[in-house]
Amino acid sequence: MEEIKIFAPATLANLSCGFDVLGCCLDNVGDEMYIKKNNVNQVRITRITGQVLPMETLNNVAGVAVQALLENLNSTQGFDIEIDKHIKPGSGIGSSAASSAGAVYAVNKLLEEPFTIKELIPFAMEGERLASGNAHADNVAPALMGGFNLVRSYQPLEVVSLPSPPQLRVVILHPLIELKTKDSRSILKQSVYLKDAVSQWGNLGALISALYTEDYELLGRSLEDKIIEPVRSILIPFFDDLKKVALENGALGFGISGSGPSVFAMCKGDTVAASVKEAMQLFYQEKGIDFDLHQSEINTQGIKIL
Amino acid sequence: MEEIKIFAPATLANLSCGFDVLGCCLDNVGDEMYIKKNNVNQVRITRITGQVLPMETLNNVAGVAVQALLENLNSTQGFDIEIDKHIKPGSGIGSSAASSAGAVYAVNKLLEEPFTIKELIPFAMEGERLASGNAHADNVAPALMGGFNLVRSYQPLEVVSLPSPPQLRVVILHPLIELKTKDSRSILKQSVYLKDAVSQWGNLGALISALYTEDYELLGRSLEDKIIEPVRSILIPFFDDLKKVALENGALGFGISGSGPSVFAMCKGDTVAASVKEAMQLFYQEKGIDFDLHQSEINTQGIKIL
Repeated sequence: MEEIKIFAPATLANLSCGFDVLGCCLDNVGDEMYIKKNNVNQVRITRITGQVLPMETLNNVAGVAVQALLENLNSTQGFDIEIDKHIKPGSGIGSSAASSAGAVYAVNKLLEEPFTIKELIPFAMEGERLASGNAHADNVAPALMGGFNLVRSYQPLEVVSLPSPPQLRVVILHPLIELKTKDSRSILKQSVYLKDAVSQWGNLGALISALYTEDYELLGRSLEDKIIEPVRSILIPFFDDLKKVALENGALGFGISGSGPSVFAMCKGDTVAASVKEAMQLFYQEKGIDFDLHQSEINTQGIKIL
Repeated sequence: MEEIKIFAPATLANLSCGFDVLGCCLDNVGDEMYIKKNNVNQVRITRITGQVLPMETLNNVAGVAVQALLENLNSTQGFDIEIDKHIKPGSGIGSSAASSAGAVYAVNKLLEEPFTIKELIPFAMEGERLASGNAHADNVAPALMGGFNLVRSYQPLEVVSLPSPPQLRVVILHPLIELKTKDSRSILKQSVYLKDAVSQWGNLGALISALYTEDYELLGRSLEDKIIEPVRSILIPFFDDLKKVALENGALGFGISGSGPSVFAMCKGDTVAASVKEAMQLFYQEKGIDFDLHQSEINTQGIKIL
């Protein structure tokens, strides 16, 4: 295979009680990437549409992720990478993760799969390190693996795949204000109250249980965040009101997507998701703030070949 | 029914990464209780063997738990409670929880079950409040419900029942030094580092997943505690060495049982458990410290009628 075209999905990290450890993969929100071998022994970003992003290989998240993979293999094979960005950088739904994960997935395919999908995660994390200063895995793991994923440990890296209850739907609202992951991370406190931490891990444990038992109501009750949300939600216009609107219209839970400013409402079934989406849309339109809005199933496949 | 005799099991709370939220129920370690209706409209502790404990109803954990249940029902029925204590108070394997949970279970049976088992938890928690100053549920819930239980929330109380991988075995070593839950709790810091909390909830999430998938190795790797164990283990003689002995002999994981001083080794299968038990026994004998030692399956039933 000389070339490949893929869909690189957006992802939802943190999920309220799962800060820095939990993420899930979205469908019908994502980038398209076209990657082909070249014969100049270089990784080149040859085209980016949709967004203005660095074209230099080592300043581009896809570029550094592929370089990391090739260095591990001692390979001198070159690749040309084209990216049609549909996920806006700084939105909080894994824009950099989609590009990093998509690039290493495609290159691995073109090299006849020297790595398993799971083994690609550390290479994609190098893109995250470039984007945010922190090589986190809670977006790249679900982008690559699909479904829900838990990062149990970073030293050594261990990612646990979790089941996805089939009726789960996600509504994502992205207020069109830019919020850099670095900035959003810098406002967090380095210490937390033990009692809040206990409440957080009680909720996370229950959320994991709910994924296995398909207990949608328990899942909703578990989407509670006493540590990060109270701090970060201040940066998101009308967060508390929007949460109220989503929950009043039947959402199971509501929280900040990744480091924001996007927010998510988790819903059971298409009908509820559609009315939550409409209510959130109406509320934000009234406030006069520009936004993007998505409704998605959980993508259990991850990256898709087009 | 006028009288009932029950087995009230010991329990293992916290389980390393699940401080204050997780517990499981043990088998063949526990108290026996004999409870009968009386016609003097009073709850009386009529006999306690095996340990010296308060006989006054309102100073006895079983007494206050039963009083709380009866007050909720506005019942004036009296009961005589006899307890054969086989679990030593202050051991860290739920001595007070066994008495509280056993008493409310028995009284509920004698009253023809006005409450479900789950509804008995708050009454049993009143016994815990008396014993430790803190109405925690991570021992009484597994004592009543059997198996593994997660306390998602206290306000309102929500307990989630979890599956028990069938080959799990627990070895418990109780160094015969007394450690009051109150004292063991007072040495904990009220604040923790966010990065340690993240690591803790990553492990707890993975542990819950491992219970569902019966992934014993993952369960073992998840039994890690960066927050409580480093502080509390100082109070337990030769903790680090004993942990090393258990792990070297094949234990999946090792940690402090409840607030200590008992420690537990989680093992896969009877054979491994037996050799871990023997190695721990030899090590502690060499050190010249008195101890009790138990090996148990996970008790998925909870309290048993004898």
